[in-house]
Amino acid sequence: MLKVPEHQVAGHIASDGKLGPLVDDQGRFFKPLQGDSRGEHEAKFYESFTSNKKVPDHIRRYFPVYHGTQLVEASDGSGKLPHLVLDDVVSGYSNPSVMDVKIGSRTWYPDVSEEYFKKCIKKDRQTTTVSLGFRVSGFKIFDHQESSFWRAEKKLVLGYNADGARLALRKFVSSNSPADSNLTPNCAFALEVYGGSNGILAQLVELKDWFETQTLYHFNSCSILMIYENESILMKEGDDAPAARAQVKLVDFAHVLDGNGVIDHNFLGGLCSFIKFIKDILQSVDKRDETDTSLLENGR
Amino acid sequence: MLKVPEHQVAGHIASDGKLGPLVDDQGRFFKPLQGDSRGEHEAKFYESFTSNKKVPDHIRRYFPVYHGTQLVEASDGSGKLPHLVLDDVVSGYSNPSVMDVKIGSRTWYPDVSEEYFKKCIKKDRQTTTVSLGFRVSGFKIFDHQESSFWRAEKKLVLGYNADGARLALRKFVSSNSPADSNLTPNCAFALEVYGGSNGILAQLVELKDWFETQTLYHFNSCSILMIYENESILMKEGDDAPAARAQVKLVDFAHVLDGNGVIDHNFLGGLCSFIKFIKDILQSVDKRDETDTSLLENGR
Repeated sequence: MLKVPEHQVAGHIASDGKLGPLVDDQGRFFKPLQGDSRGEHEAKFYESFTSNKKVPDHIRRYFPVYHGTQLVEASDGSGKLPHLVLDDVVSGYSNPSVMDVKIGSRTWYPDVSEEYFKKCIKKDRQTTTVSLGFRVSGFKIFDHQESSFWRAEKKLVLGYNADGARLALRKFVSSNSPADSNLTPNCAFALEVYGGSNGILAQLVELKDWFETQTLYHFNSCSILMIYENESILMKEGDDAPAARAQVKLVDFAHVLDGNGVIDHNFLGGLCSFIKFIKDILQSVDKRDETDTSLLENGR
Repeated sequence: MLKVPEHQVAGHIASDGKLGPLVDDQGRFFKPLQGDSRGEHEAKFYESFTSNKKVPDHIRRYFPVYHGTQLVEASDGSGKLPHLVLDDVVSGYSNPSVMDVKIGSRTWYPDVSEEYFKKCIKKDRQTTTVSLGFRVSGFKIFDHQESSFWRAEKKLVLGYNADGARLALRKFVSSNSPADSNLTPNCAFALEVYGGSNGILAQLVELKDWFETQTLYHFNSCSILMIYENESILMKEGDDAPAARAQVKLVDFAHVLDGNGVIDHNFLGGLCSFIKFIKDILQSVDKRDETDTSLLENGR
């Protein structure tokens, strides 16, 4: 009944007999508890978060719903292993476009081992983590012309500089062929995905407001997933729901720590930087549309 | 005419024949250009900032006014050296209490030498820079009972953990003897210094709003100075100006870089964390006052 998730864009992937997450056809996501303490740590976070009455309801919706742990047949054939059972955040989408963005200007944190510190800071300096306060970890776009998914190459993604990250965020909401790297992304979906009262930007700003005061958790090395359905924008079937169904979800909590009365300034700073990137794209699209309109008005 | 500034709490200090800043009796502050490129770099920042029309006026007031460079007799007796000429930010105060807080969760930045990186990150991890996103660099309080200044010991200040930083921020606005470390700071001046529409918190929030969108500069390794006059609160001489004359100033720009279209997420994250510390103090004082009032109302 369990299978390899189709829409995962970063992290351990359960294919070729490796250990990775699985999904069922009931909208559940099974994430194997990693052998070292990280799996236990993530389970503990979900237990704490789920029962924490200080987390406001409007914030809870940005986290996958947790259903405890369960022994299931592991993807690497090593027999039954404990898995976190979560709601599959892309369940219910036909052809979700997904991007994983790791937030923060560092992925290490106080009191880690020197080995872990060195490993993290090396990658943080090689990627845009230090310079931008976030790094794109992976993304896929549903190419409606080809009726198939296009995936960004992991090696290219991890080599992005500021311009590369900016381009990826534009490409993620564009309708022209993602496979052709010579095309300038047209940002056709930017307004509907990033903009609007229920769009990505509005959701990020709601999260930011919470992060300015919350001192419950420090979300080290966590990712923001951005999910939307581009087909539904093109088809415009119904008006009762936002067509793009753009969603922000926080994932990966193996390194979450107690906030101890201090805000998560590392996550917050990176989140603010990411928000500025999204705002800049929306502003450039707004400007272009204004120009288009004035051109039309001039009869050209 | 030039003398060693009385109210400096961090950085190179011009005493015992060392090279450091000087002041005149006209309210000017002379900062020697450091021998390596840092002095030139800071002068270039001031030139750029002073002429940059994109900096809003309400933000400009948080920076010392710059009057160019000038050759003056250096404090170490090495003859005439070029100095930055700035407004002395404490000029006009009788007995200013001053705190220097270095903002950011790192003092290094992309493309520095390995040597500089290692030096910075070691200190960032030893102090609260990594954990809190800021570190107290030094402070002095005017002790009105003793009619003299009390200075925090540099060694103790750099050894603060989160609780130490919190205590220092409480002590900075307290009227009971700063020299007696057994006394719990009474936060007598907290409302007038940190609170109110012209207080430190309001000023920090105004700065934060700018940092959420400004991509002109990255203020690496900069400090926020907090300045106020506690005598005037005690005396309450006039009502036409805020008695405490609480002021926030940004200083130390030897490591400022071009923002290149990216916000200064490192400074912003640290600033938000610092703001939360100040808010917590105000809230604890508010609560205490409420309790006092309800005790009074109950006739006890």
